[in-house]
Parts: sequence; C-alpha cells; structure tokens
Amino acid sequence: MSPVLAHAHGRDCAVLGGGLIGLAIAWRAALGGLSVHLADPEPGVGASTAAAGMLAPVTEAHYGEERLLELNLRSARRYPEFVAELERASGLPTGYDTHGTLAVAFDRDDRAVLAETAAYHRKLDLESTPLTGREARALEPMLATGVQAGLLVERDYQVDNRLLHSALLAAAIRAGVRIHRSRAALIVENGRARGLRLESGETLTADQVVLAAGCWSSEIPGLPPDVLPRVRPIRGQILRLAMGTPPTLTRTVRAMVRGRYVYLVPRAHGELVIGATTDELGFDTSVTSGGVYELLRDAHEVVPGITELPLVESRTGLRPGSPDNAPLLGETVLPCLIAATGHYRNGVLLTPITADAIAALLIDGALPEYAAPFSPERFGGLS
Amino acid sequence: MSPVLAHAHGRDCAVLGGGLIGLAIAWRAALGGLSVHLADPEPGVGASTAAAGMLAPVTEAHYGEERLLELNLRSARRYPEFVAELERASGLPTGYDTHGTLAVAFDRDDRAVLAETAAYHRKLDLESTPLTGREARALEPMLATGVQAGLLVERDYQVDNRLLHSALLAAAIRAGVRIHRSRAALIVENGRARGLRLESGETLTADQVVLAAGCWSSEIPGLPPDVLPRVRPIRGQILRLAMGTPPTLTRTVRAMVRGRYVYLVPRAHGELVIGATTDELGFDTSVTSGGVYELLRDAHEVVPGITELPLVESRTGLRPGSPDNAPLLGETVLPCLIAATGHYRNGVLLTPITADAIAALLIDGALPEYAAPFSPERFGGLS
Repeated sequence: MSPVLAHAHGRDCAVLGGGLIGLAIAWRAALGGLSVHLADPEPGVGASTAAAGMLAPVTEAHYGEERLLELNLRSARRYPEFVAELERASGLPTGYDTHGTLAVAFDRDDRAVLAETAAYHRKLDLESTPLTGREARALEPMLATGVQAGLLVERDYQVDNRLLHSALLAAAIRAGVRIHRSRAALIVENGRARGLRLESGETLTADQVVLAAGCWSSEIPGLPPDVLPRVRPIRGQILRLAMGTPPTLTRTVRAMVRGRYVYLVPRAHGELVIGATTDELGFDTSVTSGGVYELLRDAHEVVPGITELPLVESRTGLRPGSPDNAPLLGETVLPCLIAATGHYRNGVLLTPITADAIAALLIDGALPEYAAPFSPERFGGLS
Repeated sequence: MSPVLAHAHGRDCAVLGGGLIGLAIAWRAALGGLSVHLADPEPGVGASTAAAGMLAPVTEAHYGEERLLELNLRSARRYPEFVAELERASGLPTGYDTHGTLAVAFDRDDRAVLAETAAYHRKLDLESTPLTGREARALEPMLATGVQAGLLVERDYQVDNRLLHSALLAAAIRAGVRIHRSRAALIVENGRARGLRLESGETLTADQVVLAAGCWSSEIPGLPPDVLPRVRPIRGQILRLAMGTPPTLTRTVRAMVRGRYVYLVPRAHGELVIGATTDELGFDTSVTSGGVYELLRDAHEVVPGITELPLVESRTGLRPGSPDNAPLLGETVLPCLIAATGHYRNGVLLTPITADAIAALLIDGALPEYAAPFSPERFGGLS
C-alpha cells in the first residue's frame, strides 16, 4: 500500500458540483484512495460546457494579475500529462489541441493596444511574436484584409471542454466516485461541515466537503453567511458555427476590433466557437439580441468568410467571479469545508492544477505552496 | 340535404401537405361534405410556422404584380370571417391582430423609396398615410431618432401563424379530416391522379388529389415530370425575441435600412418576430452567421431598444416560389390533380382565399373566377 493510500484510508469526501472543477477533484481524490461522493442535478450544464476551452495564460495575462498568471502557466504546463492520463483512464478524447493562438488588431488604435500587449509579454518573459497584418494573413488566410497587425502566441492552446467534461465524468465514475444527480444542501454540525443532504432527503456524511459549484457557490442552502466571499455570476454569451472543409481557421484567433474583444476558436471536428460577452446581470441566462449581434458583427469584421457558416448554437454560461477575479482554493473559515470555485475566465485552464491542489489538501491535509495565495483566507474579515 | 352536400356526396379527396394551405383546404372540403384524407409527416414543420404572419397586401404590393395584389386584398378582406369561423370551430385562438403596420425609412435614400411607395399606393387607391419621422416616433416611441419618415398602413394586419396552424389542425380533425403522419407518393393510374401511397404502403384512393406541399411540391415521388412548373425553395431566416412589458412595439414595423428591408412584428403574447432573409440555396435550412447578423444589425438600427431582449429562436423556413412568384391554384394537366402551392411570400395571407377557391373546385368542379388567373395552365407548354 502506498503512503498516500495508507494516509487516506477510510476517509471520505463529498463534492458539491459536477462541472470540470468538481469532477476533476473527485477523480483525483478517488485515485488517491478517498471514498468520494459528488452531487449535481445536471453535471456540466453550467460554464463548463458553455466555455470556449481556450488554454490561454499568455493572451489572458492582465496587468496586476501576475500571481494568477503564475498559476495559469503552471496549469497550462500540467495539461498535456493531465489529459493523457485522463484519456487513458476514460478511454475518451479531450480535443487537446496545440495549434496555438493568433491575436490580431483590427484598426490603428487596436494595433497600439496589441503593441502594448507585446511589450508586456516581453517584460514578463512570455513567448509571443509580433507580426505584420500580411504575416498574420499568411498564417490565417481568411483574416480580413484590414487586419493591421498580429501577435502569435504559439503556446496558448485549447481543449474541447465538452469532451473534457465527458471524459472527466467517465473517469470519475470508473475511479469509484458516486455521482448523485440531485441538488444538495450543506450539512453543518458542531461548527464544522459534515456532509451534504440530497433532495431525496438522503444525507452523504463526509469528513470533508468540497464546494465546487461555480457561480452558485455562495447560494448553497445550509452554507452559513460569511463563510465564503461572494461568488457572483458573470454571464458570457457564446456562439457555435459549423465550419466546412477546409476549416475557416486553423488556430484560435483573438481579435481586438475597434476596442472590443472577440475570439474565434476552431475545433478539429469542425465547430467554430465565437465569444464572448461579459454581462453582470445576476443569474439571467438569456441570450440577447444585442449580445449575438455584437459577437457576429465583430467576428465578421475580422473573418468576413464566416457569413455563410451555419449558426448552430447560441447559449450562455455564468462565469464564477470572486472579488478579485482569482479562484478560491483551500480551506474556508468553516472547518472541513474546502473551496474550489471563483475561477472566473480561467476555469477550463485551471482544472488540472485545481484538482492537484485540492486533492493534495484532501489527502495530505496541506495545500501545495503554489496554491496558498489563492486561499479564501486572503479576503480576511469573514467571521 | 343542402345542394352542396348532395353534389359532394360520396366523393373523396386526398390532400398532400399539412401546412396552413393544405389544412385549410382539407377543413373547408370536409365542411362541404367531402371525405378528406391528408398526409404530412410533420404538419406545420415548414414555412407555415416559420413565417411572421403578416397580412400585408398593401406593404407587399410590388410593381407589376397588380393581379396578385387583387387576390391578396380579397384574402385580407376574407380574413376576419375566416378566423372567426375557425376560432368557433376549433375552440382555439388565432392571434388575428388589427393594430396595423408602420413602414419606415432609415436614411434619406430610404426615404425617397418610401415616397415612391406612397405614390404607388395613391395610384392604386391603396390606403396609406405618409408621416414625418417625428410622427412615426409618436406612434412607436422606440423607433430610432434617426428614422426619417413613415408610412402608416392601418389595414395591413397580422395573425399568429403558429396559433393559426394549431387551430386549423384542430378544426380539420373535428370536421372529420383524417390526418396521416407520413410522407406520401402520388398514385397515377390510367393517366389520372388516383390517390396517395403512404410510407406504410397503405394507399389512400381518392377522386381528386390536392398538392399542397409548399416548396416540396415539385419533388413528390410519383409526380410525372412537367405536370407542374417548378416550385423552388427560397429560404427565409427569421428570429424571435421576447419583449418585456410594456411591449417594445405595438404594431408591425417594416423598415428600409440603407436599402435593405427588415420587419419587426410584435405579438400580443410578447413575442417580437424579426425577419427575413431571402436566400436561394435549395433545400438548405441552415440559419447562417451572416443572416442572423444582418437581421440583428438592421433591426437594431431601427429599434435600438431591442438590444437587451432575449433571442429565443433563430430558424428558417423555405418559401415555395413559382416561376412568377404567384400561387398555382387549380387543375393541372394531370387529370384529378389540383395544385395549391407556390404562394412564396403570401402563404399566410392567401390561406382563406386559397381554401375557398380550391374547396369550390373540389366540391362544385369549377374554380371561382377570381382564382382563374392563377391556374397552373398560365405557364402553358407543359406536356
């Protein structure tokens, strides 16, 4: 028996949330020898399957978020091994794709912003290559002739988050995770988290409870007030088109179009994902007339050739936003309640490292050092 | 026994197509005493439920189509009585709505076109009232401030074509029409139409067969070549938004926006229908990226306040276009085969008059004089 298994022997945990984060944690925890229950009324119905699946630490690097950048880069490096193990364990593909990302600027002002981005990448020693508009079109011939400049980020990859979710669900089940398709309330006893209560009334008693309910994490019945900083829903509207053959694009294109961002993510199986709005409207999951209009307008400016492509899906996802837009990873002030939520725009990217970190905490009792800055305790002040 | 019933006694007919046209004919024929079978694999799946439901002889009047205008006006006059009888017979609403139509012009060139339209209406003695932009906005306050001019057409109404279809289906069944949910082939014997063969192999023998299969009318298995002029599919892409309270618009707005047409049809129950593209791409029923983009762009120009409205449906319908864009009504060169198809943009509007005319032909053996110009024989030359 390995030391990990000896340590974990007889301990159990309950995971609330069957999105990418919850499933990945449950899978890793079960592999580590824990007995794992997971509750979700409809696993994957949320942001996990809405997202575009970009694995983009570099093109998502923002001023003042250098600590998050470190975590993002670490998770990106972890990805190849993670998906290889997952594909072996599940027997399913994940669509991990290393064709890279091309950022482009539509007009002169956009070009100035892209030049600043390139300078920021150089300062942080991030790998990116400035291109002229002509060079960008040589890589992606369907780009509009008006595109002014490009920035090639060869190591910003993508994964098919829908395939990833299916593979995680299969792997978790194969590893022994018991999935309960039910809403759940948190059970608190003697000042500590003690398990989950399902809609049926059944209780799942557990030594540790993981809260991985995305934008619903603050709304869980039974969760005492002030245990978590507020996690709020930030709506993204996202479209899926069907490309023909040959594909319209071969790599992800992230464009700034007259000061607005739009991305186009081509999948190997022919899907072209176009996103995304950023709407703060609570739990409203409507696709709006204006949201779809602006996405299509900006995407057409950059890649006019999409005009004849079938629009096969318009949907929304609610990103879980924490107060500082970085995830909440680790123990909360409520003993035995562990947070794994608040991943905002980086949930797909941070899935492997979140699973590693939380599984280590569940099994060994300590969060790895790299995750410590993301402890919910950073917000202090919660009673 | 009424003379009609005596005459029709013992005769039967088979209708191919369960859209608005086929159902309305079947209903009227059954009321007239005929034994009626109707075959459609999925009644209402086509243009009947895609359409916006405008009853717009005036705003649809085009140069050179004055004969069609006469038929359209006749059917519009027939509508109130038709829907009243249908609502009584079915016990269901039809959403017949007399709030009228406001045509508007977005820029100066559009205004010039609208002025020509107004002059054309005057010439034909059609009722319409020119308005300034300010007067148009007084009627519909959500119109963009840039709208240059309006033309109020108080008698262009609307019906909720989905409700209309449901009511016709119910009324037809109540009147004794037997609905067969199946594709069907035409049976021809001894040089005349003799009935329909269903997918199950069952045959529906009939004295007369009505071909009311919309854009699929030329494609019916068993139909001899050259019996019908070609009816071709003309795709329309159409969107449905959800209005809040108060409604965004109170009457139909038909706009010309920089030379392109877009319409917005508000329903009493809160739907706002926005359409429609005109695409000649065969039987492809895709919604396209460019189609949705252009509809939303033009609609936003005219009514910017739609931006937050949920986009609840994007779909297409295939209009049945005849060689001269007017319907094919009456006997074909194949004895006992009657056409009721090719209604192009006017299928909803022409439903009552088509049903009257074809039912008269089925029951009395003669097409009313007003329908004679629309006989398929006008194309001659078919062997």
